Amino acid sequence: MSIKTSKKVLTVTEAIESRRSIRRFLKRSIPNEKIEEILELTRLSPSAWNLQPWRFHIINDPDLKDKLQEVATGNKQITSAPAVIVVTTDMEDVLKNLHETTHPSITNEHKEKELMYLTTQFENMTKEERGQWGLAQANIALGFLLIAIQGLGYASSPMLGFDQAKVQEILQLPHYVEFAAMVAFGYPDEKGDDHHRLELNKIAKFY
Amino acid sequence: MSIKTSKKVLTVTEAIESRRSIRRFLKRSIPNEKIEEILELTRLSPSAWNLQPWRFHIINDPDLKDKLQEVATGNKQITSAPAVIVVTTDMEDVLKNLHETTHPSITNEHKEKELMYLTTQFENMTKEERGQWGLAQANIALGFLLIAIQGLGYASSPMLGFDQAKVQEILQLPHYVEFAAMVAFGYPDEKGDDHHRLELNKIAKFY
Repeated sequence: MSIKTSKKVLTVTEAIESRRSIRRFLKRSIPNEKIEEILELTRLSPSAWNLQPWRFHIINDPDLKDKLQEVATGNKQITSAPAVIVVTTDMEDVLKNLHETTHPSITNEHKEKELMYLTTQFENMTKEERGQWGLAQANIALGFLLIAIQGLGYASSPMLGFDQAKVQEILQLPHYVEFAAMVAFGYPDEKGDDHHRLELNKIAKFY
Repeated sequence: MSIKTSKKVLTVTEAIESRRSIRRFLKRSIPNEKIEEILELTRLSPSAWNLQPWRFHIINDPDLKDKLQEVATGNKQITSAPAVIVVTTDMEDVLKNLHETTHPSITNEHKEKELMYLTTQFENMTKEERGQWGLAQANIALGFLLIAIQGLGYASSPMLGFDQAKVQEILQLPHYVEFAAMVAFGYPDEKGDDHHRLELNKIAKFY
């Protein structure tokens, strides 16, 4: 039995509690079908109006990873990781595909209304405001992605410290694309730092 | 053995695949310690510079749920659910607590530099831009929250369709607080609609 199929999927509690930011990875590649399995889970994230504004760019190519590392303050995890997923949002692509994201369970009349409403809503925003809106939604999927990676037995580190204009250039993305994170992932070759979080009473209030 | 401790935690795959937006819940309350368990997991979400800009408002009070429902286009799941968690971001509170969120593993010198850098970065933004930045980060925790709820055996529906100014008023929150979602959750009393998502080849590209 291959390693990937014999692997036990972690419980939600195990995955969230064991997740650390890992910056050093084993030199061991991850098959594309395993990456697809992770993205098939990530794709099930919810989003407002089901717009699914997340887009994933999966970088296996070593030259491209070198280039990305250069514009990400030299962060070594980019070339250490067998794969890097750049999570973006492309609201212009979303607007072109509105008819595909409305739920099939609604009536045609309801669908027409929803399309009209959404088109008006987003046309009243600037391209940048739309991008910001989509970015927030894409981060829900980023949460799903990080848990899926961990749950399937890998480790990751999400990063935001990179020159976004240069990454757009390297990946030939339009200038309006916003970035949720660059996620290096693979098999961990270090333990990572312990969690350091605010206590619950600082961030939660019961009513 | 009580129901809550005997419950099996779902695997990441099971939790993500079984999650649906659930709008009708059983009339069965959720103990606060169970809600805290969910939030203890959610709190482990990563964020840029570990700023943890998410804040959670947990509404058990029936009168308050009535009021929230009124300003959320009458969405019945709010009063149907035993508990509602309003996920917000409060970047002004984040800036007051920067010394608490920097990681204890870094040197004092490094810490001073980081605090200076962050203070300058965020002071160069308007309050609204800071809010938008925090909102994107808070949505990573929203992803974690939805998976944690499902993993521990409950169901949820995240909502964005509400009058945010009125919710600020009802919960007496400052006007600069941004909203990631209102999450109704409890024991499901319906199956929910099937997933309807874009195919992977529409949202993922390999390089």
